[in-house]
Amino acid sequence: MTDPAHSTADVRMRGFHRRTRVSEAVNWVDRQSGPLPAEIVPLERAHGRVLAENLSAASDVPQFARSAMDGYALRGSETTGAGDYNPLPFSLIGEALPGRPLGRDVPAGSAARIMTGAPLPSGADAVLPAEFARETAGVVEALAAVSPGKNVGPRGEDVIAGSLVAPAGRRLRPQDVGLLASVGVTELRVIRPPRVRLIATGNELVSPGRPRELYQIVDSNSLMLAGLIERDGGVMESRHLLDDDREAIRRLLVEPGADILLVSGGSSVGAEDHAPTLVAEAGELAIHGIAMRPSSPSGMGRIGAALVFLLPGNPVSCLCAYDFFAGRAIRRAGGRRSDWPYAARQLEVGRKIVSAAGRVDYCRVRLVEGKIEPIATSGASILSSTTRADAFVIVPEECEGYPPGAAVTAWMYDIEAGNERPD
Amino acid sequence: MTDPAHSTADVRMRGFHRRTRVSEAVNWVDRQSGPLPAEIVPLERAHGRVLAENLSAASDVPQFARSAMDGYALRGSETTGAGDYNPLPFSLIGEALPGRPLGRDVPAGSAARIMTGAPLPSGADAVLPAEFARETAGVVEALAAVSPGKNVGPRGEDVIAGSLVAPAGRRLRPQDVGLLASVGVTELRVIRPPRVRLIATGNELVSPGRPRELYQIVDSNSLMLAGLIERDGGVMESRHLLDDDREAIRRLLVEPGADILLVSGGSSVGAEDHAPTLVAEAGELAIHGIAMRPSSPSGMGRIGAALVFLLPGNPVSCLCAYDFFAGRAIRRAGGRRSDWPYAARQLEVGRKIVSAAGRVDYCRVRLVEGKIEPIATSGASILSSTTRADAFVIVPEECEGYPPGAAVTAWMYDIEAGNERPD
Repeated sequence: MTDPAHSTADVRMRGFHRRTRVSEAVNWVDRQSGPLPAEIVPLERAHGRVLAENLSAASDVPQFARSAMDGYALRGSETTGAGDYNPLPFSLIGEALPGRPLGRDVPAGSAARIMTGAPLPSGADAVLPAEFARETAGVVEALAAVSPGKNVGPRGEDVIAGSLVAPAGRRLRPQDVGLLASVGVTELRVIRPPRVRLIATGNELVSPGRPRELYQIVDSNSLMLAGLIERDGGVMESRHLLDDDREAIRRLLVEPGADILLVSGGSSVGAEDHAPTLVAEAGELAIHGIAMRPSSPSGMGRIGAALVFLLPGNPVSCLCAYDFFAGRAIRRAGGRRSDWPYAARQLEVGRKIVSAAGRVDYCRVRLVEGKIEPIATSGASILSSTTRADAFVIVPEECEGYPPGAAVTAWMYDIEAGNERPD
Repeated sequence: MTDPAHSTADVRMRGFHRRTRVSEAVNWVDRQSGPLPAEIVPLERAHGRVLAENLSAASDVPQFARSAMDGYALRGSETTGAGDYNPLPFSLIGEALPGRPLGRDVPAGSAARIMTGAPLPSGADAVLPAEFARETAGVVEALAAVSPGKNVGPRGEDVIAGSLVAPAGRRLRPQDVGLLASVGVTELRVIRPPRVRLIATGNELVSPGRPRELYQIVDSNSLMLAGLIERDGGVMESRHLLDDDREAIRRLLVEPGADILLVSGGSSVGAEDHAPTLVAEAGELAIHGIAMRPSSPSGMGRIGAALVFLLPGNPVSCLCAYDFFAGRAIRRAGGRRSDWPYAARQLEVGRKIVSAAGRVDYCRVRLVEGKIEPIATSGASILSSTTRADAFVIVPEECEGYPPGAAVTAWMYDIEAGNERPD
C-alpha cells in the first residue's frame, strides 16, 4: 500500500524506479472517489440518473378503490344465492368510468355499471363481472354471487402512503420514473454528474478535420475519451488540445471548475512529459508508473478537490488506463457502480495468450468460432487492435498467460448486451 | 400465421375471438421493421450511433514511419559488430521529436536523437535504444547492433490506406470514433433514429405535477415510455395526453411526422377503447389481442409508413407490451440489435413460479439469497411490482411454470451490467 511516487521527485529521463501494482492503484481510486453532492432535477430528466435520497410515497396509489373488471358495482352481500336459475334484480342507477365517477352512492338494491379502473362508488363493495349479469331497461340481473371485496382493487393497492418507492443509490429505471410520477413526485435529488476536463497534449497532434502536415497525427484520444466519459455518466466541462507547453498545461490543471481532470499524453518520463511534475508541484502525484501493459506510464493524483489522471498518449494505453482508473473514478463520482460497463462472458481460449509475470496484461481478443484468440498486433499505438477486437482479457500479474482450452473471462467491447431471447 | 384481426371488425364489447401467439406477433414486428435511411452526423456526435456504410481508410495511419523507442535514428547496417567493448561512433546531427521532424536526411556515419513516436528521418532505417548508446559532445557511440527496421513502426502500422476501418451496422464504440478520427473522417452516415410519437389516452389521467381530483390518477406511462424510448435509441417526436376522445386520437394517428406511434391506453375491447378501430379505419390493424399475461389487450398495425403499437393502459402491461413489441421495432428501426437490452442471468428458482399453459407469462421476480422468487402481487396495474423486482422471467406458452430448483433465464431490470471485475 505504499505510493512510490508520493514525493515530488522528477522522474523525467530517469525511468520509473518502481511500478505500482494495479490493485494498489485501484484501491487509491476507491479511497479518493465517491458520490458527488446531489442536485435537483425535474422527473422528466431523471431516467438513468442515480437517486440521492430515499423517496417515499406521499399518498396512496391509487387514492381510491377501483374496479378490477368491467361489470356492475353493488353490495356483494345482496348477491348471495344468485345464479342462472335464480337471477336477482338490481336497479341500475348509472355508470362509473375511469375519470368519470358515479357521483352518488349505490343504495341497497341498486347497481351501477362500472368499467375496469373506475372508482368504486361508495355504498358498493364488489363488482359483478359483465358475463354474470343480464341488463334490461333500468334493471340488471345478477346471475352469480360475488362476495364483498370481490373484483375490487383496494385503495393503496399499488403503493401505500409512506412506503419506500425508490431507495437512495438506485439508478432510476424507466418504471421507477413512472412510479415516482404516480406518487406525485415532480422533482428529485440525484447525484450530480462529475464535470470532466479533458486535456490532450502533444506537439504532433492536430484536431480532427484540421489540415495537417505529413508528420502530424490526428488527436484520436479526445474523441475516444469523450465517448467513454459519456458512457460513464460524466459531463465534459471543457476540452483542450495543447502543444507540450508546460505553462499552458499548468494553467488548465489548476483552473477550478472540474471534478476530474484527464490529461492524455505527456504522462511518462520523457523530456516533454510535463504533466507528472506539474501535478506534483500543484498538488499530489500519488501514483506514477503502474505494473501493467499497456498503460505502464500512467499516473494519478489530486490538485485541490479535483482528481487528476495522467493517461498515456498511445491510444490503446489511453483506453486501458481510462478503463482501469479514470472511468472508475467517474462512475463512482456519479454514484454508479464501480464495475466495468462491459458484459462479461466466460469463453474458451482458442489460441495461446502470452503474458509476463509481474504485470497485468490487457489483451485484445477476437471471437473465432466461439473461442477467443489474441489479436496479433499488440502494440500500444495500434488503436485498430481495439476496433478489430471483440473483447479484451485481463491476465493478472501472477499469471504468464493462458493455454488453449483455458476458460477465461472476456469483457465484450460491444455497447449492447447482446443476449438472445429464448423464444 | 393467420392474423385474426386482419379485418376492420370492431371487437369493442365483444372480447377477443382469438389471441395471436407472441411468436407470431414478434415475427410480424420483424417483417415490418428494419433500419431507417441514413443521416449524416459530425464525428463528434457519432459515439453509440449505428454506422450506415462501410468506412475505409483514405490514408495510412500513421502516414510516416516512426520510432518505437527513445534513442538514436541511424542506418542499422552501420551498427554491425557494435558492442560494449566495440563502441561505434556516429556524428550527432540533430533531434527528431513527435511533431518536430529532423528536417533533413541522416547521411552515412550519422545519427539523430529521436523520441518515441517521432517520424523516422529519411536515410535512417533503425533506432538504437538510448540504453545501448553513449552520447558525448556531438558524437553518439553505439554499444549494440540494431538491424535495419528495428524499433521502427512502419508507415501504415495501425491502418493501411484502403482497409476497412468500421463495418456498416457497427454501433460505434469510443475507440471506433477515435480510429475514424485518425483516418481523417469528420462526418459519416449513420442510421437515422426513429421518431416516436407518444399518445397516452384516458379520461382518468392527469399529467405529472398537475392538480388532480381524488378519482384521477397520474399518467405514469408517458414518462416510463419516454425512458424506454430513450434507452432504445428512439427520439421523441411529440408527446400527448388525451381524453378518450375518438377524433383527437384519430388526428394524432394520421398526422405525418413519426416513424412509430405508441398509443398507451384504450387498446382493449371496451366502449372507450377507440384506438384499435381507428387504426383499422386509417390503415391496417394487423394484430389485436395476444396470448400473454399481462398485455393481452395489445395490438399493432400500420398507418401509412408508420408502425402503430397499441399498449394497454395498465402500467405493467404497458411495460411488457413495449418490451416485447414496440421496443423491438424501435431498436430495429435504429439499426440496433433486436434483442432485449437486459443482461441475462441463469438463476435457480427459489419459490415456485406458476403460469398457465397456452399463454406467455411475464413474471416479475426478486433475487433472494441468489435464487429467484416471484413477486407476490402480480396484477397488471401494480407498477410497483416492477420496481420492487430485480428481474423478470418469461414462462413460455407450452409451460405451466417452474418448480423450485429449476434453472431459468432471468432478465435483469438493472440498467448497469453489474459484472464484478476479477481482481
